[in-house]
Amino acid sequence: MTTSVGIVGAGLVGCLTGLALNAKGFDVTIFELRPDPRKENSRASLRSINLAVSDRGIRAMRQIDKDLAERVLQHVIPMKGRMIHDASGKKQESQIYGLFGETINSIDRLFLNKVLLQELSRVRVKVFFEHKLVNMVNGEQPELQLAAKDGIDKKVKFDYVIGADGAHSQFRYQMQKGMRMDINQQYIDMQYLELSIPRVAGAATNHPSRFAIDPNHLHIWPRKDFMLIALPNEDGSFTSTFFSPWSVMESFKHNADSFLAFFKHHFPDAYELIGEKRLSYAFIHQPRCSLMQVSVNPYSSPNHRALIIGDAAHSMVPFYGQGMNCGFEDVHVLMKLLEKNQKNLSRSFAQYTAERKEDLDAICKLALDNYYEMSTKVIDPFYLLRKKIDYVLGKLGRGFPFTWIPMYTMISFRGDIRYSDAVRREKKQAKILRWLQNGSLVIIAILIAFHAKKLRRFLKR
Amino acid sequence: MTTSVGIVGAGLVGCLTGLALNAKGFDVTIFELRPDPRKENSRASLRSINLAVSDRGIRAMRQIDKDLAERVLQHVIPMKGRMIHDASGKKQESQIYGLFGETINSIDRLFLNKVLLQELSRVRVKVFFEHKLVNMVNGEQPELQLAAKDGIDKKVKFDYVIGADGAHSQFRYQMQKGMRMDINQQYIDMQYLELSIPRVAGAATNHPSRFAIDPNHLHIWPRKDFMLIALPNEDGSFTSTFFSPWSVMESFKHNADSFLAFFKHHFPDAYELIGEKRLSYAFIHQPRCSLMQVSVNPYSSPNHRALIIGDAAHSMVPFYGQGMNCGFEDVHVLMKLLEKNQKNLSRSFAQYTAERKEDLDAICKLALDNYYEMSTKVIDPFYLLRKKIDYVLGKLGRGFPFTWIPMYTMISFRGDIRYSDAVRREKKQAKILRWLQNGSLVIIAILIAFHAKKLRRFLKR
Repeated sequence: MTTSVGIVGAGLVGCLTGLALNAKGFDVTIFELRPDPRKENSRASLRSINLAVSDRGIRAMRQIDKDLAERVLQHVIPMKGRMIHDASGKKQESQIYGLFGETINSIDRLFLNKVLLQELSRVRVKVFFEHKLVNMVNGEQPELQLAAKDGIDKKVKFDYVIGADGAHSQFRYQMQKGMRMDINQQYIDMQYLELSIPRVAGAATNHPSRFAIDPNHLHIWPRKDFMLIALPNEDGSFTSTFFSPWSVMESFKHNADSFLAFFKHHFPDAYELIGEKRLSYAFIHQPRCSLMQVSVNPYSSPNHRALIIGDAAHSMVPFYGQGMNCGFEDVHVLMKLLEKNQKNLSRSFAQYTAERKEDLDAICKLALDNYYEMSTKVIDPFYLLRKKIDYVLGKLGRGFPFTWIPMYTMISFRGDIRYSDAVRREKKQAKILRWLQNGSLVIIAILIAFHAKKLRRFLKR
Repeated sequence: MTTSVGIVGAGLVGCLTGLALNAKGFDVTIFELRPDPRKENSRASLRSINLAVSDRGIRAMRQIDKDLAERVLQHVIPMKGRMIHDASGKKQESQIYGLFGETINSIDRLFLNKVLLQELSRVRVKVFFEHKLVNMVNGEQPELQLAAKDGIDKKVKFDYVIGADGAHSQFRYQMQKGMRMDINQQYIDMQYLELSIPRVAGAATNHPSRFAIDPNHLHIWPRKDFMLIALPNEDGSFTSTFFSPWSVMESFKHNADSFLAFFKHHFPDAYELIGEKRLSYAFIHQPRCSLMQVSVNPYSSPNHRALIIGDAAHSMVPFYGQGMNCGFEDVHVLMKLLEKNQKNLSRSFAQYTAERKEDLDAICKLALDNYYEMSTKVIDPFYLLRKKIDYVLGKLGRGFPFTWIPMYTMISFRGDIRYSDAVRREKKQAKILRWLQNGSLVIIAILIAFHAKKLRRFLKR
């Protein structure tokens, strides 16, 4: 008999998990709380509509379905660097991400979700929408108890169950009741408000002139305590996000005019790009969203019949653009374990935490730290110097005794390097740089000492 | 109209909260998941049946109902110190807790719960048993949605709601969904198994001879990585608890014989006291319980209509005997805020986190650290020396320029000192002790220097 797997959550990670397990011959069923996004315009219910897919996400998709990956990649907008907007609103400066022209890729979350759902339909994986998980009984065959919108409650047993239902995972809550799971849920003192820069009016579809600013960059307005970013959409518009501590947002006291004045002062060019009306509308009607980190241990139940992956297991802040990439990598890692264990899910679930925990902790911390990089460091001259040294040493390539790889490259373009290894390698690189700095100081000191006589003579003249 | 308050949880803290708010004129209703403990022998469903009530718990009860407190205190067994059982099983050593004969007091959790419930009945506070909280809608008037055992679901609105439903609080889970609550749930690598030492057969009820070991001590068998403790019960028996890392328990591989051999080797006297049959039965049939810490921030909802207290807000490990005392102190603190705010619950809820957070964090950490004290330090000669110094300095009393109060005294016998102040004061005391130590060293060094000549002469002889 085919082994059955129940997945809770038909978001990006849940869908990819379903496709991957179906391809391995498992009998997959997916349950999703929300309505089918293909049926109606459910954009309103989805937060953070833009994603940057990079190497880890692409690798995972390709490994599961090469065709699917290529189809998705046809609809991304590559971003080769950051475009830093200065406070005057008049200067933009490009900072290239990769050593060899690598890009991260802006994609619409809803589009990607629809593609994945379409693929699930094609391979006949059942997806039940508007099914709310209300209870889980984790025995020899875990049972999902679901409340459907039609009022009919279901109890369904599976050989294995997987929770991919996001940061506020109900699956995680149900699973942890029957086991010793450490959970750390931490809110970051930061809110975000989603805005948008419209496409250039009158420009032809597909013509580059439809973008009001360079489409091949991730735009940043770094202002230390707060910042604005913008990612391009295929239609010519940009999705822009304003990040700030809650106190900044509260200081406007629900007064759109004071928000507008603040915005105009700090982001004069963005103010023009978005337009007063849109800004004012967004301020009044768009929700302010919070940012949260979740970290748990372990990821699988003691009987190794239930597992959580994606945001349900490791919700991170969005500042490294790795949330979805990391979730897709989770699926990739699980598939590699399945291959190693001859498709034995119990053994793979059992090994998953040891295999993955260190990397997930590493990327969650990097994501948090990267707010400081995006909002503040990108305009620091020493940071820019470091980036140049990184670039030069990185370009020396493999001929050099120690292959130098900039941190951003390791995280975003080198899915073959584990997150935790990237952190270790970067520590080593930073140490080497400190030696170089100190070494240079010593050499200069020696030079001065050697030439002291000449120097004195020179000074006496 | 009277302000209504719904409380979830009719355990010790929930009941005391109900009594306290009823006395202040609020219209209180309590819901409890479990059946009425007065109706049947529900001991089986309650874990950790022994508690040590000390000053903070007694203060809180007295403040709310002096009569009730006295009625409870008639049924406690005072414990004036620890009785340390050595590894040979032949030596016992008493370590007195207080400077002035203060005691902590062993009490049966079920008895205390029944007394509180009886008091609630007397003052006509409604308590609904077998009502499970399934949802909470926190608006202007928070709504509790409850599933009753009779199959009839209830939706009840209150002006305010309070969650006192323990470490695995459903109320907390419902409350955090609509707000930014930091939650840290951490399992400690430790299990406990409850055992019992029977009363002396044939001894008359109420006669001191019914106790097989000294009833006025908390008995400890400290063995570093694991330990056994025992607390007296009124009927002459002792409730004993075996604490160990999970690996120790797992090393027995469900084999009662290897557990018995281990137990006999490490606790020879307790082995005799409990008896082979009881030990074997407990090993096979009693559950191994886990230990967990929960810490959250904040304790009240943003609209200040919902609050969590007791274990629901700060589950701690049992090693300082403060879990219930601290929960009762929560109620006391809330009542003091209500008095300050002219019975305004919103304002009191709003101020509660700032008032209480630091103390709760302090006691949770102290409880965790105290495992090391109980299991290891109590047989360290330097610890015993420190205790003696504490005793001498403490006895100097208020005449002394700086009133010296041993840490254990501050936590267990001085409810007027906040947990966090106790930690600060102890840090100061430890610093003074280090000065004294170093000062002594310096004096001895000076003495040696002064008498160096004599010393040399002496040595030459």
